[in-house]
Amino acid sequence: MKITMAHGSGGRATSGLIENIFKKANSNPVLDAMEDSAVVDGDNKIAITTDSFVVTPLFYSGGDIGRLSVCGTVNDLLMRGAVPKYITSAYIIEEGADTEVLERIAVSMSKTAKEANVCLVCGDTKVIEGSGGIYINTTGVGFVKDGTDIKSSNCKAGDKIIVSGNMGDHHAAVLSHRMGIKNSIKSDNAPLNEMVLGMLENKIRIHALRDITRGGLGTVLNELSRSSDKCFLINEADIPVSDEVKSFSQILGLNIMHMGNEGKLVAVVDAEDADIALSVIRNSKYGEDAKIIGTVTEGNGVIMNTKIGGRRVVLELIGEGLPRIC
Amino acid sequence: MKITMAHGSGGRATSGLIENIFKKANSNPVLDAMEDSAVVDGDNKIAITTDSFVVTPLFYSGGDIGRLSVCGTVNDLLMRGAVPKYITSAYIIEEGADTEVLERIAVSMSKTAKEANVCLVCGDTKVIEGSGGIYINTTGVGFVKDGTDIKSSNCKAGDKIIVSGNMGDHHAAVLSHRMGIKNSIKSDNAPLNEMVLGMLENKIRIHALRDITRGGLGTVLNELSRSSDKCFLINEADIPVSDEVKSFSQILGLNIMHMGNEGKLVAVVDAEDADIALSVIRNSKYGEDAKIIGTVTEGNGVIMNTKIGGRRVVLELIGEGLPRIC
Repeated sequence: MKITMAHGSGGRATSGLIENIFKKANSNPVLDAMEDSAVVDGDNKIAITTDSFVVTPLFYSGGDIGRLSVCGTVNDLLMRGAVPKYITSAYIIEEGADTEVLERIAVSMSKTAKEANVCLVCGDTKVIEGSGGIYINTTGVGFVKDGTDIKSSNCKAGDKIIVSGNMGDHHAAVLSHRMGIKNSIKSDNAPLNEMVLGMLENKIRIHALRDITRGGLGTVLNELSRSSDKCFLINEADIPVSDEVKSFSQILGLNIMHMGNEGKLVAVVDAEDADIALSVIRNSKYGEDAKIIGTVTEGNGVIMNTKIGGRRVVLELIGEGLPRIC
Repeated sequence: MKITMAHGSGGRATSGLIENIFKKANSNPVLDAMEDSAVVDGDNKIAITTDSFVVTPLFYSGGDIGRLSVCGTVNDLLMRGAVPKYITSAYIIEEGADTEVLERIAVSMSKTAKEANVCLVCGDTKVIEGSGGIYINTTGVGFVKDGTDIKSSNCKAGDKIIVSGNMGDHHAAVLSHRMGIKNSIKSDNAPLNEMVLGMLENKIRIHALRDITRGGLGTVLNELSRSSDKCFLINEADIPVSDEVKSFSQILGLNIMHMGNEGKLVAVVDAEDADIALSVIRNSKYGEDAKIIGTVTEGNGVIMNTKIGGRRVVLELIGEGLPRIC
């Protein structure tokens, strides 16, 4: 069935859509109550984050907008050391979209929410003119334990910089799909609960965490450098990239430092804890290719020791990158 | 300046947009930290709600999409008896939108958030192809006091049904703007904190609350009737409508029962408390035209005693109504 403007009217067509697709894919007592807001258990300190997803195509190798919209938001909660608890799901749907496509996306969201251990507590549906596009906003709420204080400005000189796996996979998968290139590159979109909660359980002194999405590792490191007023010194040779993504980026002239991921993080940890942190991440789901890529020092900006023995300033992404990557 | 795809890349253009528009309009320590998620104080019970806004035009008599996006979400929290605390703001912007327009909207959001006593804690910006459209998702978090239990299924036979003011104002204002009709009808978009928190302070036994938006009063009453398995018996003569909106709806053949508001609620309260509830609402900001419009009885559906002495079944909105009203 095709979506029409009536599905966004708030009347019977809207409730039919919710009943037949969204509630079917995501049933739980809070959601099923269909109230104006969900009332749930809280905690002393909570983390809140919001993200909209406009990725095109909606389905790509290794994932889809539904999985992405859960992972992106769950990971943003984790980056403050919060345990993800609740997620909301708001669809803006262009007229002409297929209800079958919506259903696949809703099922994927539900599956990913289970994996990420979050409860989908409320939703919204709006319809706009257009040609079948689907956009999803997810907002997440998590609980933060007393004493947890993870933020960019905490980075100290001497800290070690860890990335949790290969760079550029999501970017390369989406771009391959758009260009019709056949390869075995898969998006890395994944929820990073296990590695982050694992580090917290092991009492790693984590100073800052950032997931690497739009703008890539280069942009994230520049943001960390600005917030903490420190220099991020990294080694090109240590940046993990799969052979396939490396070839892909070289052929197309893409800079791996600006290619987006959707299931990777940068952890800035106390030097003494770096080896344990690395081992926790490597032993967690989605962390097997993690590496220590450098050190925080006094100074400014992001500096890379290149493979051929030089030094290069890494800038944040300027301009367009890959539009609609997430 | 016109928005380009680069403003959605996650790189320098995105951070420039956030810095110059969104942070300028909404500065606070939580937001200014620019972290992946906001860490804030929580409470034992929290309410969560999400809503996207796709209204066209973006500015109309009495309001704009910025004010609307705060009111809609704040009101949804209030409808569960929650004290609104935090709000998120996620923009999906079509290429070609004006940054001046974005700025006006962001300033309006900020002003309305102050009025509604909520702190804007995080945001997101995405850019899609298109022709200058702007869509906003807001998600709200509120605190619910122990013992507060307001939900549709609580409605009991004998309860009184109160509406907080004139029906159809938002609908008529948006439609007038689209049709280029000059009149003095203004949207009612407003945050209803004062009347709801006032009723709670006065210990009114509120059984259910619903704000009247898309689908209108008829749709809301049908939803309440279904959830509580009761009949909602109302009097046509008691439904408050301004003379101007009444004439407007009669000329265009619109059913006032299906016209949307954005600053009105239905309160279903214990019969013994109905008069005090009415007086609290009438003495609150935005509540002066409140009326008791009927009674909950055993049975099903929504029945209206008409002005000419008949009885009519009121159905929920079927079909399109006014698309993109909120």
